[in-house]
Amino acid sequence: MPQFLATTDADFETRFQALLTMKREDAPDVDEAVAAIIADVRARGDAAVTELTARFDRLELTPDRMRVTEDEIEEAVARVPEAERDALTLAADRIRAYHARQMPEDARWTDEAGATLGWRWGAVDAAGLYVPGGLASYPSSVLMNAVPARVAGVRRLVMCVPAPDGVLNPLVLLAAQLSGVDEVYRIGGAQAVAAMAYGTETIASVDKITGPGNAYVAAAKRRVFGRVGIDMIAGPSEILVIADAENDPDWIAVDLLSQAEHDESAQSILITDDAVFGRAVAAAVDARLETLERRAIAGASWRDFGAVVTVRDLTEAATLSNRIAPEHLELAVAEPDALAERITHAGAIFLGQWTPEAIGDYIGGPNHVLPTARSARFSSGLSVMDFLKRTTLARMTPESLRAIGPAAVTLAGSESLEAHGLSVQARLDRLNRP
Amino acid sequence: MPQFLATTDADFETRFQALLTMKREDAPDVDEAVAAIIADVRARGDAAVTELTARFDRLELTPDRMRVTEDEIEEAVARVPEAERDALTLAADRIRAYHARQMPEDARWTDEAGATLGWRWGAVDAAGLYVPGGLASYPSSVLMNAVPARVAGVRRLVMCVPAPDGVLNPLVLLAAQLSGVDEVYRIGGAQAVAAMAYGTETIASVDKITGPGNAYVAAAKRRVFGRVGIDMIAGPSEILVIADAENDPDWIAVDLLSQAEHDESAQSILITDDAVFGRAVAAAVDARLETLERRAIAGASWRDFGAVVTVRDLTEAATLSNRIAPEHLELAVAEPDALAERITHAGAIFLGQWTPEAIGDYIGGPNHVLPTARSARFSSGLSVMDFLKRTTLARMTPESLRAIGPAAVTLAGSESLEAHGLSVQARLDRLNRP
Repeated sequence: MPQFLATTDADFETRFQALLTMKREDAPDVDEAVAAIIADVRARGDAAVTELTARFDRLELTPDRMRVTEDEIEEAVARVPEAERDALTLAADRIRAYHARQMPEDARWTDEAGATLGWRWGAVDAAGLYVPGGLASYPSSVLMNAVPARVAGVRRLVMCVPAPDGVLNPLVLLAAQLSGVDEVYRIGGAQAVAAMAYGTETIASVDKITGPGNAYVAAAKRRVFGRVGIDMIAGPSEILVIADAENDPDWIAVDLLSQAEHDESAQSILITDDAVFGRAVAAAVDARLETLERRAIAGASWRDFGAVVTVRDLTEAATLSNRIAPEHLELAVAEPDALAERITHAGAIFLGQWTPEAIGDYIGGPNHVLPTARSARFSSGLSVMDFLKRTTLARMTPESLRAIGPAAVTLAGSESLEAHGLSVQARLDRLNRP
Repeated sequence: MPQFLATTDADFETRFQALLTMKREDAPDVDEAVAAIIADVRARGDAAVTELTARFDRLELTPDRMRVTEDEIEEAVARVPEAERDALTLAADRIRAYHARQMPEDARWTDEAGATLGWRWGAVDAAGLYVPGGLASYPSSVLMNAVPARVAGVRRLVMCVPAPDGVLNPLVLLAAQLSGVDEVYRIGGAQAVAAMAYGTETIASVDKITGPGNAYVAAAKRRVFGRVGIDMIAGPSEILVIADAENDPDWIAVDLLSQAEHDESAQSILITDDAVFGRAVAAAVDARLETLERRAIAGASWRDFGAVVTVRDLTEAATLSNRIAPEHLELAVAEPDALAERITHAGAIFLGQWTPEAIGDYIGGPNHVLPTARSARFSSGLSVMDFLKRTTLARMTPESLRAIGPAAVTLAGSESLEAHGLSVQARLDRLNRP
């Protein structure tokens, strides 16, 4: 049974605080094993990667078999039923259209001192996308990572996906094709991350690595960070639904379950201003759990981490939501835009009862890689910005240096950085020469 | 003596590769000590912070003395000479004006399927700025971190600066005042980072921590990452100057020394298309090193990590520069804008011979916190974006759900996520009901 809380309860603050800070995941400590794998790949390249692949994925590879060939991709992709191909194509197009709008502008201007200032955006040269194998091998995740990279202008896009026992998901290959991935390698785990970060004889190194993975992949990404850029390390998924009583309890129940079914550590929370409605949703969840395919996972998540919170009004709901800073926030209320105005921290907001969160997972257009574990307080979902970097620009004229240079000399003096001051003063001296 | 390389040398590629990958810093392994400090601060709060401050900073504090009072700040600030106050004020104003232009736009549109999509930017609630104590206590760094936070709209801005033996730098306090810091605490090290990340009885926790620091501070930032956001972990400073022969060798020499004087691990590289000019610059460096206050540091940096690279032409210079991906890049050439077009990776570009890099350290307007150690390949300098996060928005109408919902149901089926599909299908069923 999920927790039931009400802001009118005497012990509400204590219980809500416990809900906020509850630990949902015991990450296994694989850091030492991962360090050894990375060192091995750095030292021995392809030989290490193929040995590790034989050990972990039960797949005997030679270096020339690491890369999935165009023919193999075509063959796999041809097996995808038309309905799935069409759906994935629509998703890719919509994600591309959304992310294209995110491209930031360059800027350049001359200010009143005569200094020309600005900045310029550029794409990383090469990006590597990690895709988990087996059951968690989601074609939608390929689109969500690869499409923004391509939109940003990344020139070389690499994908690593393990093929346990040799098996690859044709839909994952189709997603790679639709989003313009250049190279696909059938390797996974920390060895794939190491190969992309440091390069091997077969795989040229990349500059940025993104994508989800298990504890080994997460630890490897943390370790190669600095050598390459990485995206966030995502925790288990979460949804917060704020719903008034004018909703079908069953709709809200399946929305809650759509996160709960991801993972036993996922968390689904309902905040409502109607306690009776809250009970009705909980009953609808129980009813759906009787037949849901992933009922073992979803049921455990709902039982251990689910919560139904009754509030006095929707303003209170917004306040609690901002303390939770949810990854996904559904506003199933009559005036969702008005309520959204009060939300300061959330990865993604789904407005109104016709916008189930699952739309955002697949087809809406916004990215489904979003900040978890309250990190929406300080971070954002994946976007084209993750594949771009900014170079700032400054150009002084003799006149502008004369105007602002002396202040730089003064500040360099304050910081006892003489050469800093001299580099400006040497030029000012020339200007002041008769 | 620095290294001299020429692209016409037979062993150029080997030596250039060695230059690219040379290790300049042996970071001491303080991770265990830092883990213990963080655990102590989490467990005992103020008591741990004050004990650690007594031990590391030789400063006996009670919790009510941790915060620097308004009166203390006023008193210190009153002692700052007018020239320094004016210079710092000009710097703050120019940095504010530059960063104000970085504020990104919100977006909202309705697409051809009838879905309303968009995003909204918001500031982190509270940011913490770490400022080193002692000699590396730079007022310019306070401005470069605090001003963007304020411009972004951060509501609460906290600063921690250690006061070894009780001493604080009045200019640092003035910089804090000019940039609108709300709370200043005289604590430092890993204990200050832990206090800001987890909070104590006296210091409320923040959501994002930025600012430079020693190995302890860097390790602490890495450890609290996830609980709060952090900025980059910066390595030793670097400058690359691309200069043709039409420059005063002495100007280029002091520009190279302005990075070398930061740190024995700093790196200054000159690329020129004129070998004679390269020798002249090296001679000018030697001449300046005879009298430079920080000649021990600058001399060691130039000797161990400095390099003069002769190229055939400036196109070759741009290619090498992109492999280096320098933190600071000076283009002291006749047509700097044309050369800048060829640059794909650099933290900041300084255009033309009237723009010494030190202008960017203090007064130009762009941020001086920039990606080091080749990370300009995938990351950017500090900006207002570091204090903002984006929430994506989606709103479906019944009609738009009817248009794109079925594709989501199909993809949920492909990924065996039944509840995802049900959350869309339940709504489609209502629409399809006669």
